[in-house]
Amino acid sequence: MSDTAGKTIKCKAAVCWAAGEPLKLEEVEVAPPRAHEVRIRILYTGICHTDEYTRSGKDPEGIFPVILGHEGGGIVESVGEGVTTVSVGDHVIPLYTAECGQCKFCKSGKTNLCGAVRATQGQGLMPDRTTRFSINGQPIHHFMGTSTFSQYTVVADVSVVAVNPKAPLERVCLLGCGITTAWGAVVKQPGIPGSTVAVFGCGAIGLGVIATSSLVKASRVIAVDTNPSKESWARQFGATDFVNPTQLGDKKIQDYLVEITDGGLDYTFDCTGNVHVMRAALEACHKGWGVSTIIGVAAAGQEISTRPFQLVTGRTWRGTAFGGVKGRSELPGLVEDYLQGKVKVDEYVTHSRPLAEINEGFHDMHSGDCIRCVVDMS
Amino acid sequence: MSDTAGKTIKCKAAVCWAAGEPLKLEEVEVAPPRAHEVRIRILYTGICHTDEYTRSGKDPEGIFPVILGHEGGGIVESVGEGVTTVSVGDHVIPLYTAECGQCKFCKSGKTNLCGAVRATQGQGLMPDRTTRFSINGQPIHHFMGTSTFSQYTVVADVSVVAVNPKAPLERVCLLGCGITTAWGAVVKQPGIPGSTVAVFGCGAIGLGVIATSSLVKASRVIAVDTNPSKESWARQFGATDFVNPTQLGDKKIQDYLVEITDGGLDYTFDCTGNVHVMRAALEACHKGWGVSTIIGVAAAGQEISTRPFQLVTGRTWRGTAFGGVKGRSELPGLVEDYLQGKVKVDEYVTHSRPLAEINEGFHDMHSGDCIRCVVDMS
Repeated sequence: MSDTAGKTIKCKAAVCWAAGEPLKLEEVEVAPPRAHEVRIRILYTGICHTDEYTRSGKDPEGIFPVILGHEGGGIVESVGEGVTTVSVGDHVIPLYTAECGQCKFCKSGKTNLCGAVRATQGQGLMPDRTTRFSINGQPIHHFMGTSTFSQYTVVADVSVVAVNPKAPLERVCLLGCGITTAWGAVVKQPGIPGSTVAVFGCGAIGLGVIATSSLVKASRVIAVDTNPSKESWARQFGATDFVNPTQLGDKKIQDYLVEITDGGLDYTFDCTGNVHVMRAALEACHKGWGVSTIIGVAAAGQEISTRPFQLVTGRTWRGTAFGGVKGRSELPGLVEDYLQGKVKVDEYVTHSRPLAEINEGFHDMHSGDCIRCVVDMS
Repeated sequence: MSDTAGKTIKCKAAVCWAAGEPLKLEEVEVAPPRAHEVRIRILYTGICHTDEYTRSGKDPEGIFPVILGHEGGGIVESVGEGVTTVSVGDHVIPLYTAECGQCKFCKSGKTNLCGAVRATQGQGLMPDRTTRFSINGQPIHHFMGTSTFSQYTVVADVSVVAVNPKAPLERVCLLGCGITTAWGAVVKQPGIPGSTVAVFGCGAIGLGVIATSSLVKASRVIAVDTNPSKESWARQFGATDFVNPTQLGDKKIQDYLVEITDGGLDYTFDCTGNVHVMRAALEACHKGWGVSTIIGVAAAGQEISTRPFQLVTGRTWRGTAFGGVKGRSELPGLVEDYLQGKVKVDEYVTHSRPLAEINEGFHDMHSGDCIRCVVDMS
């Protein structure tokens, strides 16, 4: 039992007061966890494009003021009534995709999209429709059920998982989103070993898809990015080929890929969020069996299109959120895989920042040489 | 050995001389089959929307003059050199989706889209790039490798299958396209037993999907059609529900279906060819696992669209041609299933016409009370 248990904690957090504004460091009050809630001392957090998407105001469902952040690692400070799955002192990763084990989705065996806290999470609230964050009595919203840009956060007990404490939190915090998403998107497709793969976009997600495709022994892994500096990154993560679509003259990237692969790829992945790239990724698939997976998040209102003939002739268009991974069931194993050297994590961290420089961390993300920036919350 | 073997046969055929014109009965010369070709006396043929699509001129790849028709049944009149898989006198169904067993596609085990005769078939030619049909020396093109609107036709040996001669050809000719397409689209998805299904469009294909879903014991089969007279048809084929989208006021059909199914369908099928319906069928799928299959053929240049969020949240968009069925391997068994009463065929035949009335058969197809019109070629 920590001596802060049951009390409101004052700590620092990066607050986004309104769409489009930079984050502002504030002293925030974090109320104790209620029943089936967990309060976590966040030690490290990554910065992900989804944070920037909401911060920028492009997300029409963004709610302000808010504490962003969803790729964190921390230690359980206290737990509310009825919490049995994590204990004080556990090293944990907050999960923006909950896993209650009880709902229609969890029980289906077909999806990781738990319905337990979905509605309130989307409204920036805890399941009882209130917030645990406030500044001078003004409620501050939660984000994705995680809000890791605060030194302390409160999450639902279905939205957190304990992991091996030997794993450095300044690394495995990244398993809270990008790396796990990429890993799951590959390993949950049993056909990828021995198959050809193309990966559109070589950010953290794309590199993760490349690394995991290579890990499961895809026969060929073609990385696609308009930034030539990504070639060395892609190859370091396991790409066998690199194609820059801007170097193809009038030829469309999908036509080029179909040519160099004798009919197209077995599997493609969009890791850009660009709907035109999503189309190219589908159309680069092999007739008869190619499967294209959308991982990137498109801007609001944008739509994907193709001729239905692409599907009628045997291509499949699908997508994945958090890689189809059930966080509470699967993250502990993924952390073990990391500790045993099977899954890359350290290699993604190109930048680190103290909390005071979190806005600079957002700028880092836009620079071509940044894969992931980890923020030290201490 | 028939006494016509090796000779050109003069017979009647319905020729489409130019896009948009009605078919014209002509005396056509049918050359003997060359190596790996089979000449078939066509006894019966169905009329399908794909024939009308090309006849009307909407198909930008239509080639004229041409003998249409791809849903036929007949008897082998003679075979060319090297033909080992069918013999003179066999009752056969021509296949617009060949099965060579040797190409990358056939060997993949993942698709029925054989590549053996694809290129020439699309050009209205036999594999040696010539035609077997002519009128006064003018070549007449083949269609879909089958051209069943002729009393005699020539097909590649990879494009024909022998079936049990006890099966009436005036019925099993329909297994050459629509019924088989619908059957395959369902049985090749192993998850359908016990699942909920919605079928958009209650023509022959839609009714076939309904019948097969019912056969494999889907838990609920919702038929969707704007024509209220289709309700009794749909229920007769096994639909548990019928929804007329025009009766929903301002509510979109997908939103209505999601409401009445507690979150959406496990499986949906577009059997209309309308790209807006294709979108509705996808969006009527359950988050997390719903799978939508496009069977209908859209008009040239039309595109399907949706928000990528639909896929990222776990829906899958796919399609199928000829239901994923490998004709030479699978049609004989399907004919046996029909003979044993497991698969409906007779029930689809609402109209029959002599060859002289084939244009009226096309008109029949557009009337709401026609499922399939079978043409007697004798």
